[in-house]
Amino acid sequence: MLAESSRLSVMNFLNEAANQYPNAISFASGRPAESYFSLERWLTAISAFQEHAAMSAGHTLLQAGRRIAQYGPTAGVINALIARQLRIDERIECEAEQIIVTAGCQEALSLAVPALCRAPGEVMLARNPTYIGMTGAADFAGVEIVPVEVRTGETWEQALGRIAAELRRTGKTPRGFYLTPDFDNPTGTVLTEAERRSIVAGCAEHRIVVLEDNPYGMFRFEGDAPPRMAALDDVGCVIYLATYSKTLCPAVRVGAAVVPKRLFGSAAASERLRAELSERKSFVTVNTSQVTQALVGGVLLTEGCTLAGLVQAPRSHYRRNRDALLDALDGAFGGREDIAWNRPEGGFFLRLSLPFEFGRQETAECAREQGVIVMPMTFFSLDSTRRHEVRLAFSNAEPAEIEAGVQRLARYVEQTSPRAR
Amino acid sequence: MLAESSRLSVMNFLNEAANQYPNAISFASGRPAESYFSLERWLTAISAFQEHAAMSAGHTLLQAGRRIAQYGPTAGVINALIARQLRIDERIECEAEQIIVTAGCQEALSLAVPALCRAPGEVMLARNPTYIGMTGAADFAGVEIVPVEVRTGETWEQALGRIAAELRRTGKTPRGFYLTPDFDNPTGTVLTEAERRSIVAGCAEHRIVVLEDNPYGMFRFEGDAPPRMAALDDVGCVIYLATYSKTLCPAVRVGAAVVPKRLFGSAAASERLRAELSERKSFVTVNTSQVTQALVGGVLLTEGCTLAGLVQAPRSHYRRNRDALLDALDGAFGGREDIAWNRPEGGFFLRLSLPFEFGRQETAECAREQGVIVMPMTFFSLDSTRRHEVRLAFSNAEPAEIEAGVQRLARYVEQTSPRAR
Repeated sequence: MLAESSRLSVMNFLNEAANQYPNAISFASGRPAESYFSLERWLTAISAFQEHAAMSAGHTLLQAGRRIAQYGPTAGVINALIARQLRIDERIECEAEQIIVTAGCQEALSLAVPALCRAPGEVMLARNPTYIGMTGAADFAGVEIVPVEVRTGETWEQALGRIAAELRRTGKTPRGFYLTPDFDNPTGTVLTEAERRSIVAGCAEHRIVVLEDNPYGMFRFEGDAPPRMAALDDVGCVIYLATYSKTLCPAVRVGAAVVPKRLFGSAAASERLRAELSERKSFVTVNTSQVTQALVGGVLLTEGCTLAGLVQAPRSHYRRNRDALLDALDGAFGGREDIAWNRPEGGFFLRLSLPFEFGRQETAECAREQGVIVMPMTFFSLDSTRRHEVRLAFSNAEPAEIEAGVQRLARYVEQTSPRAR
Repeated sequence: MLAESSRLSVMNFLNEAANQYPNAISFASGRPAESYFSLERWLTAISAFQEHAAMSAGHTLLQAGRRIAQYGPTAGVINALIARQLRIDERIECEAEQIIVTAGCQEALSLAVPALCRAPGEVMLARNPTYIGMTGAADFAGVEIVPVEVRTGETWEQALGRIAAELRRTGKTPRGFYLTPDFDNPTGTVLTEAERRSIVAGCAEHRIVVLEDNPYGMFRFEGDAPPRMAALDDVGCVIYLATYSKTLCPAVRVGAAVVPKRLFGSAAASERLRAELSERKSFVTVNTSQVTQALVGGVLLTEGCTLAGLVQAPRSHYRRNRDALLDALDGAFGGREDIAWNRPEGGFFLRLSLPFEFGRQETAECAREQGVIVMPMTFFSLDSTRRHEVRLAFSNAEPAEIEAGVQRLARYVEQTSPRAR
């Protein structure tokens, strides 16, 4: 299955483009901005966690330090601090006992997909287009992933009912639904509260577990945030996925899965799922590095279990970049009816729709001829649709680059779509 | 498959026993001795790696620090340092390009097993009994694991030929052979150089990839070390698995897989295998934490890429414990023909054979009635054999405890096997 997948070759392709055209301006990488990483300072926070662990367990500092360096519980040691941070920052009511700390959110996906889809014919649902890491996790587990598209006039609940029925007719059962309700990668879109409630209702009805991924939620620039789906979930169908890769930095490789207190109403089912995730984790990474858990735990302790302070500066940076990108797009394409883009209120990405197909060949041409690299949306598409769209990441660039990059892209669009004008 | 497995329940069972009888002396845990962990000092070595990375790439220290905190290459950033350490400490000739840095050695197992056994009927071989993490990785991947036992008068090469032929008759193909040639967990035994050569010959003939796991090789107390199998491998059939969990500490969660330069003679096949392991890793943990890679890299730099100095003190500790255990066993069981044990020249474990079956019930009885916890060998057995054996871990105890623990075990043996005397 992996041999047929093109995920790694996508990454190779983009890396090659970046290497071949080192002066190209890139809208391809959705990495967080590096200038706000404070790794050296955060490393000193490990001692704050060590003191906290010593106090909690009645150990000496030396004992607590040794415990940190040793093997530890599969589900993690900073679960209570994460629960507190999620209550404060995301308004998600949860307890330490619901949490499994993972080696980044990607590990949580790679554990959850095979745990949910165990029997042949059990499949995952996902919005289309979707995050490449989800498709990879499903490929790795040998699990099919089915796109969910809402038809005009349909609610999410109705769409889920229709798709579940269609799948049933072919002997398949949807067991999970992966989505990023806030500032989705790759589209930058946000689901409304009504949409979230409709999804929860549909999932409850068809016993589908939502995997709510939320890497970008704390990077909202303006407007009111709808509640997290986990906060709306009164039936116990949402596994919330947290990560510190964007709020702190990717190198900590610390994420978490929060299992509902009562999975579809059953505390025992919830406990079984958490035990299964733990068992699977024990055979993949044993436990998440306690060095980096202690780092994240120490930062949470010193910040009063909220990251609101830490994300302020990078959020302003991303906002400035989003503004620069929207201004540049307005300047370059304003008034054209054959080119459209969304205006995300946060996150790292937006979606641009062009009057011609934009695939591998166009990506290479655009990099070679105009010196700008973008991500074709087909790379994220589950069914080869979205051929006219590209993803623009604005997280990791400077406004002047963004301005120049859009001008270059505009030149490529001019030369490629003369008849469309 | 995981639902049927008893691996986690084994661990739960032992944890419960330990919790229920907190004053029991435990020979169950093979954790490294904590008193030699120098986490605080090792954390300061991160800056040594940062300086090295800045120098190598022509970056400022600030840039290098930010690169460490960012996402990084899937295969790792300390590969050249690991290659140098393996050349010095293990006499394995390898290059950075052969290495994938993993989130502990367990991740390497969890990637290698499904990468080797892709088609239905492709199975893993393992010595019997074997490490629980290997059985877990195979369960997780849905791959069957077949025990390799050498019959009297047979060489390893012949045994592998016989088993490959037996498997072929049932439509199965052995693709990998997991083993720990040095101070095996759970038995503490070592394969001779002749045995290693015979295994390489058999694996070359039947195109079986050896997974050579070596967590304990640097803890040899006396005698000459046979060459590592990767150092004897002139056909390109050995993937060497390294870990820093025992030489440094488990909390770094840094291990590595070293793919042969030419897999069965083919550089292209080797490159494909490494690319496949990398792709799989990218969908499980993205990349190994660069915080802990920098820690391990920094320690390697400050130690001149050898861990010989660092392991001296813990090795003396393990040797003293091994001596205490052998003395205690000689004192308690010396002269009894129905009780036997091996005398390992290193490592963390030995195997004790008893005149009666020792399973779950006996473990619980022994903990409750005599206050000593041991690991039944059936927990590691692939075919429910080894019913009369237990594993004794001597890594994580004090000599006085070891002495008292063996006396307690002797009392249990007395009361349980009256007719055997």
